[in-house]
Amino acid sequence: MPNPSQPGDVRMRGFSRRTTVADAVKWLDDQISPMAEELVPLAVSAGRVLSRQITSRVNVPAFDRSMMDGFAVRAADTTGASPYNRLSFRVVGESMPGRSYEGKVAPGEVARIMTGSPMPEGADAVLPVEVVEIAGDNVSAQGDVSPGQHVGRIGEDIIAGTAVLPAARVLRPQDVGVAASIGDVEVPVVRRPRVRIVVTGNELLPVGSMPAANKIVDSNGPMLAALVQRDGGVAISPGIVRDTPEAILEAMQSAVEVVLISGGSSVGAEDQAPSLLAKHGELPIHGVAMRPGSPAGMGRLDDRLVFLLPGNPVACLCAYDFFAGRAIRRLGGRSTDWPYARVTMPLRRKIVSTVGRLDYMRVRIVEGRAEPLSISGASLLSSTTRADGFVLAPPDSEGYPPGAEVDVFLYD
Amino acid sequence: MPNPSQPGDVRMRGFSRRTTVADAVKWLDDQISPMAEELVPLAVSAGRVLSRQITSRVNVPAFDRSMMDGFAVRAADTTGASPYNRLSFRVVGESMPGRSYEGKVAPGEVARIMTGSPMPEGADAVLPVEVVEIAGDNVSAQGDVSPGQHVGRIGEDIIAGTAVLPAARVLRPQDVGVAASIGDVEVPVVRRPRVRIVVTGNELLPVGSMPAANKIVDSNGPMLAALVQRDGGVAISPGIVRDTPEAILEAMQSAVEVVLISGGSSVGAEDQAPSLLAKHGELPIHGVAMRPGSPAGMGRLDDRLVFLLPGNPVACLCAYDFFAGRAIRRLGGRSTDWPYARVTMPLRRKIVSTVGRLDYMRVRIVEGRAEPLSISGASLLSSTTRADGFVLAPPDSEGYPPGAEVDVFLYD
Repeated sequence: MPNPSQPGDVRMRGFSRRTTVADAVKWLDDQISPMAEELVPLAVSAGRVLSRQITSRVNVPAFDRSMMDGFAVRAADTTGASPYNRLSFRVVGESMPGRSYEGKVAPGEVARIMTGSPMPEGADAVLPVEVVEIAGDNVSAQGDVSPGQHVGRIGEDIIAGTAVLPAARVLRPQDVGVAASIGDVEVPVVRRPRVRIVVTGNELLPVGSMPAANKIVDSNGPMLAALVQRDGGVAISPGIVRDTPEAILEAMQSAVEVVLISGGSSVGAEDQAPSLLAKHGELPIHGVAMRPGSPAGMGRLDDRLVFLLPGNPVACLCAYDFFAGRAIRRLGGRSTDWPYARVTMPLRRKIVSTVGRLDYMRVRIVEGRAEPLSISGASLLSSTTRADGFVLAPPDSEGYPPGAEVDVFLYD
Repeated sequence: MPNPSQPGDVRMRGFSRRTTVADAVKWLDDQISPMAEELVPLAVSAGRVLSRQITSRVNVPAFDRSMMDGFAVRAADTTGASPYNRLSFRVVGESMPGRSYEGKVAPGEVARIMTGSPMPEGADAVLPVEVVEIAGDNVSAQGDVSPGQHVGRIGEDIIAGTAVLPAARVLRPQDVGVAASIGDVEVPVVRRPRVRIVVTGNELLPVGSMPAANKIVDSNGPMLAALVQRDGGVAISPGIVRDTPEAILEAMQSAVEVVLISGGSSVGAEDQAPSLLAKHGELPIHGVAMRPGSPAGMGRLDDRLVFLLPGNPVACLCAYDFFAGRAIRRLGGRSTDWPYARVTMPLRRKIVSTVGRLDYMRVRIVEGRAEPLSISGASLLSSTTRADGFVLAPPDSEGYPPGAEVDVFLYD
């Protein structure tokens, strides 16, 4: 093999060795633990990840309440009441929602009560309005009730001291409601990692430009920002970075937890990020046995995780999903699992894969079967918008024959 | 049955008739079509719904480009080149990313070229750097290339005039990238419905209060806001509304597409929303054959859809998910399907259901089997945070025996 060494020459040495996806993931997982907590208002907490268990300091409800519209009564007084043995009670007051009846209910007395209203002292059951007849200040009961009937007890929803939500919970709408019900106005959640998106490439025009005679519009920047957002990170993407060592190093040193560098990730003379990262930080993984995405790399620069993502957009998406997205989710306290639903279905056509590397193949779903897209170029982002999802062939696989049952990860 | 008629009396007439869930959904679906479109910047478009197909006006890339680092060449010139028959070429220029080589590549000439750079005029293939040896201003080729080899053609990703994204697409991260690549900076999406949340109930304290001796903290307001957000609506919830006809009517007349009224939805004397809606608008559905959620109602007030949701929080969640959430998703151009994954598994214990109504039963998943929660009160919101999901028993079902395979809808 020729080995051109003249300075400034265009050259491609190739990777001497490629790390397996499994080893790269192992390295990555060893680097990361969830971030510290912050308190956020309930109104913006849905979908965030609880940093610790939430325990209630209070009973919900904090009082015995009626579960029906009717009359609060001493249950024992109603014994024997029936349509043929009506028992008469004197109405001494009214307990409305949020407004207690401050008096007592004595034998022979009732107080009007609405659903959700506090039980008056002395009463231990509610005569539903359907079983009484009202006459002026008196009611006659045509049925009996047992002690506690139609009464919701103190703490029936939540007893003080109970753990109501577990640590690491991704907050659901009803969780937000429960947190409100115990008096919380903020909840402790895992911080969201800040992610600096560094798009390089002199062939790139900023978003909003029209493609030109010799330039293409940056698609990785907006795609990565949406991926970071999906995975619970805070994307910081101020624009395309000039392809100079100074500009790239400066961007790499942003005040963030994660840096994503798109483009220039390989081993060519113009690929600056790998040598910069190796020099100023560490680059333990560079070159991964996968396709697309093989020119990916990852390392650290001080406290930051740095991901070198190929400029080819499909390779960029693939390397993001295998490594960067996993890291961002884990930093944010989330599951490392992909946010893609997985379905099993037969293949419509065979898939050929090379032993020794993981292959990521875009497929369409046609009549309940997965059809590999014939176009496989890593530069063709539109293949991932025509595709419904992707199939993986692990390193030990030569592919799958037509009709084989495969797992399809759905893009949405 | 007694039928108390004294003004001001506490009473509960009950619903004379309950609409089936299926009929209520049918009414609802007839009321709704997706909203008009608006243009939003790409940066906030992920997860939004395209209002119409997006077609590219341009080719991507807009030029032939190199797919390798190497030398642009006339393929015919390389015929017969091999390690034993090296062919020499003169390097006449360089095509770097974003910067074309403006000259021509004539017979016997090559131009240095980087991946992604425009092909110079005259050249129709790229000699990869690995198959050449460089000596000063000359290179010797040790292999041949065919016409078009290692060249990405104009429009290979997207041809001008092609539909790149279909109407109704929920935009994925890569879709945002593709839209950027064709020069778009905004995309046309379905507007998000504005949803006014009207929480009523004199027994309620605002979020951030501690539960008191006779009041509970509003949990439906924050829960509904999170549900609306999940379903792509814009939640507007300025706080608890006083339980007076004037205040409720005014809130109902907000400048929104959807009004959710929590509490006072039933037929008691203090339930004001139903009669207000019937008087000022229409209330075709009031009382639904479901549990929980039976005191739900829905109708219209001018152009607004109005949902009457029970104050009991589980009933509120259930009625929201069956009706209001469906309407909000549909208005926003989204699928009416629930955002809950569905899994099939055996029941651990029997479920008893009443024929004639739909039952919504919270379940926990224990060792791969669905266990109904023994507490079923519609007032106990914590049951929905302890549950992993729910099982439905349709109106014609008496329930399911232990071991029956049931569909479980997962809360997350």
